[in-house]
Amino acid sequence: MSTTARLLLHCPDKQGILAEVTNFITINKGNIVYLDQYVDRIENVFFMRIEWELESFLIPKEKIHDYFATLFAQKYDMSFRLYFSDMKPRMAIFVSKMSHCLFDMLARYTAGEWNVEIPLIISNHPDLKPVAERFGIPFHIFPITKENKMEQEQAEMELLRKHKINFIVLARYMQVISEKMIEEYPNRIINIHHSFLPAFVGAKPYHAAFARGVKIIGATSHYVTTELDAGPIIEQDVVRITHKDTPEDLINKGKDLEKIVLSRAVQKHIERKILAYHNKTVIFN
Amino acid sequence: MSTTARLLLHCPDKQGILAEVTNFITINKGNIVYLDQYVDRIENVFFMRIEWELESFLIPKEKIHDYFATLFAQKYDMSFRLYFSDMKPRMAIFVSKMSHCLFDMLARYTAGEWNVEIPLIISNHPDLKPVAERFGIPFHIFPITKENKMEQEQAEMELLRKHKINFIVLARYMQVISEKMIEEYPNRIINIHHSFLPAFVGAKPYHAAFARGVKIIGATSHYVTTELDAGPIIEQDVVRITHKDTPEDLINKGKDLEKIVLSRAVQKHIERKILAYHNKTVIFN
Amino acid sequence: MSTTARLLLHCPDKQGILAEVTNFITINKGNIVYLDQYVDRIENVFFMRIEWELESFLIPKEKIHDYFATLFAQKYDMSFRLYFSDMKPRMAIFVSKMSHCLFDMLARYTAGEWNVEIPLIISNHPDLKPVAERFGIPFHIFPITKENKMEQEQAEMELLRKHKINFIVLARYMQVISEKMIEEYPNRIINIHHSFLPAFVGAKPYHAAFARGVKIIGATSHYVTTELDAGPIIEQDVVRITHKDTPEDLINKGKDLEKIVLSRAVQKHIERKILAYHNKTVIFN
Amino acid sequence: MSTTARLLLHCPDKQGILAEVTNFITINKGNIVYLDQYVDRIENVFFMRIEWELESFLIPKEKIHDYFATLFAQKYDMSFRLYFSDMKPRMAIFVSKMSHCLFDMLARYTAGEWNVEIPLIISNHPDLKPVAERFGIPFHIFPITKENKMEQEQAEMELLRKHKINFIVLARYMQVISEKMIEEYPNRIINIHHSFLPAFVGAKPYHAAFARGVKIIGATSHYVTTELDAGPIIEQDVVRITHKDTPEDLINKGKDLEKIVLSRAVQKHIERKILAYHNKTVIFN
Repeated sequence: MSTTARLLLHCPDKQGILAEVTNFITINKGNIVYLDQYVDRIENVFFMRIEWELESFLIPKEKIHDYFATLFAQKYDMSFRLYFSDMKPRMAIFVSKMSHCLFDMLARYTAGEWNVEIPLIISNHPDLKPVAERFGIPFHIFPITKENKMEQEQAEMELLRKHKINFIVLARYMQVISEKMIEEYPNRIINIHHSFLPAFVGAKPYHAAFARGVKIIGATSHYVTTELDAGPIIEQDVVRITHKDTPEDLINKGKDLEKIVLSRAVQKHIERKILAYHNKTVIFN
Repeated sequence: MSTTARLLLHCPDKQGILAEVTNFITINKGNIVYLDQYVDRIENVFFMRIEWELESFLIPKEKIHDYFATLFAQKYDMSFRLYFSDMKPRMAIFVSKMSHCLFDMLARYTAGEWNVEIPLIISNHPDLKPVAERFGIPFHIFPITKENKMEQEQAEMELLRKHKINFIVLARYMQVISEKMIEEYPNRIINIHHSFLPAFVGAKPYHAAFARGVKIIGATSHYVTTELDAGPIIEQDVVRITHKDTPEDLINKGKDLEKIVLSRAVQKHIERKILAYHNKTVIFN
Repeated sequence: MSTTARLLLHCPDKQGILAEVTNFITINKGNIVYLDQYVDRIENVFFMRIEWELESFLIPKEKIHDYFATLFAQKYDMSFRLYFSDMKPRMAIFVSKMSHCLFDMLARYTAGEWNVEIPLIISNHPDLKPVAERFGIPFHIFPITKENKMEQEQAEMELLRKHKINFIVLARYMQVISEKMIEEYPNRIINIHHSFLPAFVGAKPYHAAFARGVKIIGATSHYVTTELDAGPIIEQDVVRITHKDTPEDLINKGKDLEKIVLSRAVQKHIERKILAYHNKTVIFN
Repeated sequence: MSTTARLLLHCPDKQGILAEVTNFITINKGNIVYLDQYVDRIENVFFMRIEWELESFLIPKEKIHDYFATLFAQKYDMSFRLYFSDMKPRMAIFVSKMSHCLFDMLARYTAGEWNVEIPLIISNHPDLKPVAERFGIPFHIFPITKENKMEQEQAEMELLRKHKINFIVLARYMQVISEKMIEEYPNRIINIHHSFLPAFVGAKPYHAAFARGVKIIGATSHYVTTELDAGPIIEQDVVRITHKDTPEDLINKGKDLEKIVLSRAVQKHIERKILAYHNKTVIFN
C-alpha cells in the first residue's frame, strides 16, 4: 500500500458533509481505503475517520491540511487532525516497578507489530532498567519525592521535548502526573488503571474489589486528565473471579487484563483510530 | 421519528458510490438518520445500509424502488433491498418440545420490544400449545413422520403463504427443513444451533462437547441453507464450563445462551441490519 | 435420586472438621453426593456445603438438626443451615412496570426448571397484572406513596407471612425496601441492580454509564441490606458497548443481562448454594 | 509458607476416601492448606488435590510416597502423583518463527511469576535466537526436513534428557511431534492451537474461520497426543470478531488470545493443578 492520509474530524452534523468530503477526495483522485463515520444524534455531532492513498492524489501532501482548513473547516465549523501513514509517532513509556505491561509493549515493538518509535523509557525507580537494556532502549531514572516533584517533571518534559515525543504511556507508573505535563500532552497520555472504572478509583483497587466481594474484576485504559482516573475511557475488559480469590490472586489475574487492555489502547492510538470528545472517546474500527 | 426508508445494498466497489447515493438522498431532501458502510477489500465489494426520513423526501414512497433501480442498480451492478419502517415483517415460529426460546421471543413480542407480527406458531408436537395459548397466538400442529414429511411441509407452506409470512424462526425445532421450503425462504429461515459452529454440527452437540472435554460451550444462530448447520452465521456467544459440568449441566447452561443468541439474531433481522452474502453475513450496527 | 440433606456451614478453621463431618455422615450410612469446601485463609474460616442421601441414613430426618447442633456446632463454634431436597422454598416476586425479568423467571418456573413455589407476585403498579394472569399467579397491587409506605409494607409482610414466603425477588421493583422488611428476610431478598456494582449505585445507572463513556456495562444481583445497593453480591455479568450506543441502547442491551444475572442468582439461592458471610457470598459450585 | 506436599489422585469412588486421607494427614500433624475434590458421578471416579505443610509432618518427606502407596493406593485402586513445592519443574520451550508466546512466557519467567526452570529453547529456525539471547537462555536450532526429522527429534530428546526436562511447551512450534517423543512425555507436552477446538483442526485455522464467517474466534491449549489437535484440553478462550476483520486481523487478534491461553495452561501445569484423565482434564482451582 502506498502512503495514506488519515483524517479525523468532527463538526456539527449537517446534511451533505459526508458526500462533500468523499466527493472532494474522489475527484482529486484519492483512492479511499477506509471510511468510518458516526453521528451523535443527541448532541448532533458528526464524526468521521477517512483514509486515502496519496499516490495519485492531485493535492500535494504538504498542502492537504491547508485545503481542508480552507474548504471545510470554516464552512462546517469543523475540528480535524491530519496524519500520514509514513510518519511514525514517537512514544515514551513511564514505569515504576512492575514489568508486565512494559514487557508486553516492548515485545510487540520488537516484533514489529506497532508502527511507532520508542526512543526512551522514564522511571522513578531503577528496578526495570535491566528490562529496558534487554531491548536496547535508553532508560532514564527520575526519583520523585514530594519536594522535587515539580523540578523532576520539568526535567522529564525537557527530555520528552528533546526526543520529540508525541505521546506518553503510563505502564503502571505509580505517580500522579501534574497538571503542567497533562496540558502539554492533552489526550496524549494513556494510563492503565487496574479496575473497572468508575468503580474503585484511586489506590489499591484490587484490595477494594476484594473487600466489596465483586464477582468480576476489570482494567481500564484512558487518557489522563487533571481529575484522577476520570479521563476519557479508551478500552476496558474484565475477568471473572470467585470467593476463593485472595487479593494476591486478583493482582495476578489482573496483570493479564492490564497489559492487554493497555496495549489495545496504545495500538488504537498509534493507528489514529481514537477521537476524544467531551471526556469520551469515539473508537473507529 | 417519521417513517424511514431502509436501503441495504452491495455492488462491486467503485469510487464515488457512497458520495453519489448520499448526495442523491440529500438533494431530494431526505434526512439521513443512519449510515453504515463497509468495503470488502479482498473481494472488492461495497456494502451499505442507509436509512432516511421520508417526511420531506421529494420522491414518493412507492417510486423509490424504481428510482434506485434505474439510477444506480444497473450503473453499479448493484443488488439492493428496500424496506420501510412502517411495514412490520411477519414472522412464524417453529417449535418442538423445548420452551425456553419460545418464551423468550414471546416475552419480547408481548412487551413491544420487536417491530414484528407473529401470526402463528407451528409445531410437530402438541407440547407447547399451552404456551402459545398463554400469549394468544394460534398454534398449528403438523406431526412429522418419514412418510408424511413432504405433504406436511406442503401444508405448512400453504399456511405460511396464507398468512403472508416473511420469515421463519426455528426455535429448537427438531426437524430438518426440506429444500423446497428453504428455497421459498432464502436467507429468511433463522435457526439456533446449540453449539459453537462449526464445532459439533448435527445432533446432540452438548453430549459431543462433554465427550471432547471442551472448557467453553456456545450457541450459533444462522440462516438455514440446504447443507445442515452450514448456513451464514448471524450471531454466536459462549459460556465457560468446567470438568464438573455433566451433559445435563451443559444443556441447562446452554439454554440461556440459545435464547439470547437466537433473539439477538431475530432482532437484527427485524431491524433489517443483516446482509447475507456468499454464505456469510454483514451485520450493520 | 432419593431425598437429600443439604448442609451449609461455617466456623473457625480447625484441623479435622472436614474429616469429622464426612466421617460422621459416612459411618451413619449417608451417601455423600456433593461436597464443596473452602477455607478463607485470611480470616481463617472454614466453609462447607455437603449433601447426602437420606435413604439409608441411620439418623431420622427430623433429628439431624439436633445431632449436628449437639455434636459439632458447639464444639467448633459452627453456624449451620440444614435443608432437605423435598422441601420447595416459597418465593415472592416484587415488580413495578418492566416485564423482562418477570417473564424470564415465570418461563423457567412454568417449564419446571426451578424447584420452587411462587404463590404470589406483588407490585406497586397494575401494569404487569396481565403477565401474572397469563401464568395463573395471584397478583397483589400495593400502590406506594411517601405517606402510605409504612402501612403498605406492613400489609405486604402480613401477606408474605400468610403465604409462608421464604425469600423475595425484586425483579426491577423500583422501590427501596424498608429496614423492617429487610430484617425479617435477612439475606433472603434478592435484588437486580442494572449496573456493574459498585459503579453507578442508585438511580439511572445506564444514563450514568453513558455519561461516563464506559466501554462495558454490567448487571449485579445481590442480597438486599439496609445500605442501598451495597449488600452481598451474588452474581455479575457484563456486555460490551460502543460510543454508538445511546442511553436507550444501553437500557435495551442491559435487559438481557439483568434477566440472566437475576435468574442465575435465584437459581443458586433455590439450590442452597449461597452462603452469605460478612457482606460477601461464598458460591458453592 | 514452609515446604508443602502436593498430592493429586484419582480412584473409583468409595465412601470414606476423603475422610481417610484427610484424617491420615491430620493425625500425622500435616497442616492442610489446600483441598479440592470432585466426583465424576457418571464414571464414578473420585479426584482430589490436597496440599499440606511438611514442617511438623511426622512422616519424612522421602517416605511419603511409600506410605501412600502402601496405605491407600492398593486398597482404593488409586493412581496418585506426589510433588513438593521446593522442587522446580524444568521446562523446555519449542518455537518456530512467531515470538508473541515466547515473549509472554519469558516475561513471566523473568519477573519471577513462575516457579519453574527454563534451561533451554529449541527451534527449527534461527529467527528467535535474538529473543532467547535477550533473556540469556540457551537456544538450540534443529532444522527439520522430511528426511532428517527422526534423527533430529532423537537429538532433541537426548538434549532434553541431559537437561532433565520435565515438560515441554510448544509455543507456536510449527512441526508435528512424533509418537516417540509424545510417549516419552505423556500429558507433559503443552500445545497452543490457534482455534476454538474442535473447530478448525490442523493448518491455517484463522483462514478457515474467516472462510466460514464465524463471529467469534478462539484459542485452545491442550496436551499433545498422537492424534493431531485432539489431546486433553486444558484451557480455551475466545474473542469477538466482525465481518470487517480480514484473515490478517484474525491473526493479530488471535495472538493475544494464544499467548494468554497458553500461559494460563503452563501456569496450571507448573502449579500441579491439572489431572488428565480419559482424554479430558480435571482443573483444580
